[in-house]
Amino acid sequence: MDAKQLKSFVNGHRISFTESKSSNREYAQHLDSTDPLARFRAEFLIPSKADLRDPHPEAKPAAEQNDPTDPCIYLCGNSLGLQPKATRALLNEELTIWATRGVQGHFKHPLSRPWVSADEEVTRHMANIVGALPTEVAVMGTLTNNIHNLLASFYRPDRSGKGRRKIIIEGKAFPSDHYAVESQIRWHGLDPADALVTIFPEAERAMLTTQQICKVIDRNADDTALLFLSGVQFYTGQAFDIKAITQHAQAKGIVVGWDLAHAAGNIALDLHEWGVDFAVWCSYKYLCSGPGGIAGIFVHEKHASPDRHRLAGWWGHDRLSRFNMDNAFNAIPGAAGYQLSNPSILDLTSLLSSLQLFSAATMPAIRTKSVQLTSYLEHLLHTQFPPDDKTFEILTPSDPSARGAQLSLLFREGLMMRVFNELLERGVVVDERKPDVIRVAPCPLYNGFEEVWLFVQELKRAVGVVIGRA
Amino acid sequence: MDAKQLKSFVNGHRISFTESKSSNREYAQHLDSTDPLARFRAEFLIPSKADLRDPHPEAKPAAEQNDPTDPCIYLCGNSLGLQPKATRALLNEELTIWATRGVQGHFKHPLSRPWVSADEEVTRHMANIVGALPTEVAVMGTLTNNIHNLLASFYRPDRSGKGRRKIIIEGKAFPSDHYAVESQIRWHGLDPADALVTIFPEAERAMLTTQQICKVIDRNADDTALLFLSGVQFYTGQAFDIKAITQHAQAKGIVVGWDLAHAAGNIALDLHEWGVDFAVWCSYKYLCSGPGGIAGIFVHEKHASPDRHRLAGWWGHDRLSRFNMDNAFNAIPGAAGYQLSNPSILDLTSLLSSLQLFSAATMPAIRTKSVQLTSYLEHLLHTQFPPDDKTFEILTPSDPSARGAQLSLLFREGLMMRVFNELLERGVVVDERKPDVIRVAPCPLYNGFEEVWLFVQELKRAVGVVIGRA
Ligand SMILES: Cc1ncc(COP(=O)(O)O)c(C=O)c1O
Ligand SMILES: Cc1ncc(COP(=O)(O)O)c(C=O)c1O
Repeated sequence: MDAKQLKSFVNGHRISFTESKSSNREYAQHLDSTDPLARFRAEFLIPSKADLRDPHPEAKPAAEQNDPTDPCIYLCGNSLGLQPKATRALLNEELTIWATRGVQGHFKHPLSRPWVSADEEVTRHMANIVGALPTEVAVMGTLTNNIHNLLASFYRPDRSGKGRRKIIIEGKAFPSDHYAVESQIRWHGLDPADALVTIFPEAERAMLTTQQICKVIDRNADDTALLFLSGVQFYTGQAFDIKAITQHAQAKGIVVGWDLAHAAGNIALDLHEWGVDFAVWCSYKYLCSGPGGIAGIFVHEKHASPDRHRLAGWWGHDRLSRFNMDNAFNAIPGAAGYQLSNPSILDLTSLLSSLQLFSAATMPAIRTKSVQLTSYLEHLLHTQFPPDDKTFEILTPSDPSARGAQLSLLFREGLMMRVFNELLERGVVVDERKPDVIRVAPCPLYNGFEEVWLFVQELKRAVGVVIGRA
Repeated sequence: MDAKQLKSFVNGHRISFTESKSSNREYAQHLDSTDPLARFRAEFLIPSKADLRDPHPEAKPAAEQNDPTDPCIYLCGNSLGLQPKATRALLNEELTIWATRGVQGHFKHPLSRPWVSADEEVTRHMANIVGALPTEVAVMGTLTNNIHNLLASFYRPDRSGKGRRKIIIEGKAFPSDHYAVESQIRWHGLDPADALVTIFPEAERAMLTTQQICKVIDRNADDTALLFLSGVQFYTGQAFDIKAITQHAQAKGIVVGWDLAHAAGNIALDLHEWGVDFAVWCSYKYLCSGPGGIAGIFVHEKHASPDRHRLAGWWGHDRLSRFNMDNAFNAIPGAAGYQLSNPSILDLTSLLSSLQLFSAATMPAIRTKSVQLTSYLEHLLHTQFPPDDKTFEILTPSDPSARGAQLSLLFREGLMMRVFNELLERGVVVDERKPDVIRVAPCPLYNGFEEVWLFVQELKRAVGVVIGRA
């Protein structure tokens, strides 16, 4: 769906947020009742309000945990996704294989998930999520480390300090990305003061437009080696036009990589078609793999050659001769050739349990619901907080094609942490970014419309308490 | 213990393998009965022979798995350590916290293991294992990836191709180390043909002596930037004299790093005292963290400065300001400053459950038993296979200070895989390296003397079957 299609879709026949009844609880319930993904909520463990209040929820009998009649309102999947119910059983299966097979689990796995190739099924699921060929994706390591691994291959600056050497990033990139890029520039003996170009919005609180990004690209076209942006901005929730920006930069001879931490499992991605050179992302946010879960990389087919320079490791070596213990590195063509180490089976398994749900739901259906859910949240915020209420403003673009699930609420100075804490007391889990932002992200696989409606009621009450108008 | 002490210890009053009765099963049982670490075996899940034969051990009722009256003989901890019984419960606790707390587990953890600092306790245990200050160790990522991360900081060659630029490694380094080092050299624009020095034994099957290594260092003293060796050689089982080699190379102005994959949790390490510059290791072998578990790094205190160049990430940023989302990287002093990403809680937790056992047993006691156990294995192999038997020879040095737990048996051509399979049929799990080597590694925390005795009987039978003299 392009921007125009998305807009007409949201405001079209399925959800008409202009109807007056659209702010009623019944309407939210109606939306839930027609939601084709509604059944997926039951596949997740939603912390209950009692769990959140209990100092030792883990000490309760299992049957009393995650009471489905008392769920908290969890709109924080942009930070840490919830746990699929299948995860525990699948992990415990692997623990049993380890316990009963030992090292043999690498090759003779009773459940046909031999550890030596355990990444393959996960990779196939992951490729669908980012719109890639399976050979373009590898599941490995962690996000920031993979930024380094891929920059080592794709950032090949002219070290003389004259030719193509610059990296263009957002001025407000996620700090880890900023640190990573700076340290890569320094590694080459270059100076970030010269070789790092940062794009800041043209006005405070403004978004970065495609036009503005392209202008920066044009201005630095001759000496830029790499453009590295985030697909969805972690702070504002803005989704960039990956396709247009990629193609514009590539036309100027610039290599283009994307950090999809907040995009993978969130927005529709078509990395192969868009011709993106490389991308990296984590799996513990929208993809629900658990804290610090294993990460993903994308390397476009056009860069599949085993001869491409990279930081090499035995897990990226040709599978058939990997155990021959030979000294000549012979990369697997494609993204798999970037693997370094044998991967964590616990992390892969946890991710597998989640990606099976993504594959069952399919990304187009997930994105469709996500657009509705977030638009509904936006609609309620607009209608429930009168226009002259200056408690917060929504930073995130209102165009559904320019955002994912998340809305970022920028609070009037001094209010944010108090509202956040008040919400938490009421069993509402969202995410705060100091000094003044609360990020709210309804996740289509486990959040629903009534839940969003309830959130907005709780927000009204919390704000009321904080500003003393309750 | 130095070499001489170790030798006299082994052949001293506690185990006198020269007594004729020392090859009897009763003697093995006697050794078990006086083993102060014997109780730790009960802390591990040993696959049973029935488990190994069962195509679906995981389908049996839990009580029938890991039958302690029918244990397999598992001498493969050099490849994948066995699972501590505590691992499953601890992991399931974390799953419950994730299920009942969601993202709150990062900060408010009911069991006082908040995910944001979950590495700290693991790091303290790990520091004891490698003889380091806690600030010199970080638990992060995977082994080959950490080789790259630390080479990016410690291998700073003269790129002109004239000054210090070479890396010295073993000719038979583990392939991943070889690939990693070569690709780092190439990343700098240098040519491995010039900048990579490999040390091969002076004769076939000979070990690399300290003297020989020092000679290579001397020969390349002027233009070598880095020496990177393994603490215990994966193939031969040889343990290098880390202290002597480190000090010799450093005296010539060379930076020294060690791959301790086969050394950590196996031999006594004193990295801080020895002045090693940096080291890396994995945790799934002797340290029993499970397949693909999280890895460790050591950065000596003398390199603790936050200003040292490195590949940077937000997890290495000053803890108090990490979430301020500032663009100026401010490294945590010491090894923690090398962290890149928020770590996998599953992997950290699995490792924690194992390291708690190591701390309870203590490395000196573990090494003491290991020396006895492996010497006993060697003694039995010598006495049970007559000197004129040419079925295999032991590659590993006989000096206990020049090896860890592992003995590598080099079989006469064509025998190895058949013996390996015959052993496996009999419920004996060891490790094969093609073409001709079987590695046998009794692990002091879960293996015992009678088990070693039984192994040798099974090996005799297996060899008998294979060469048709049974
Ligand atoms: C000495 C050595 N180096 C490197 C590796 C590769 O380990 P990883 O796959 O964890 O990177 C191994 C694995 O066994 C090893 O023994
Ligand atoms: C955009 C972005 N980049 C990088 C990171 C760092 O992730 P990790 O700790 O997995 O390296 C995050 C984490 O939230 C992120 O959102």
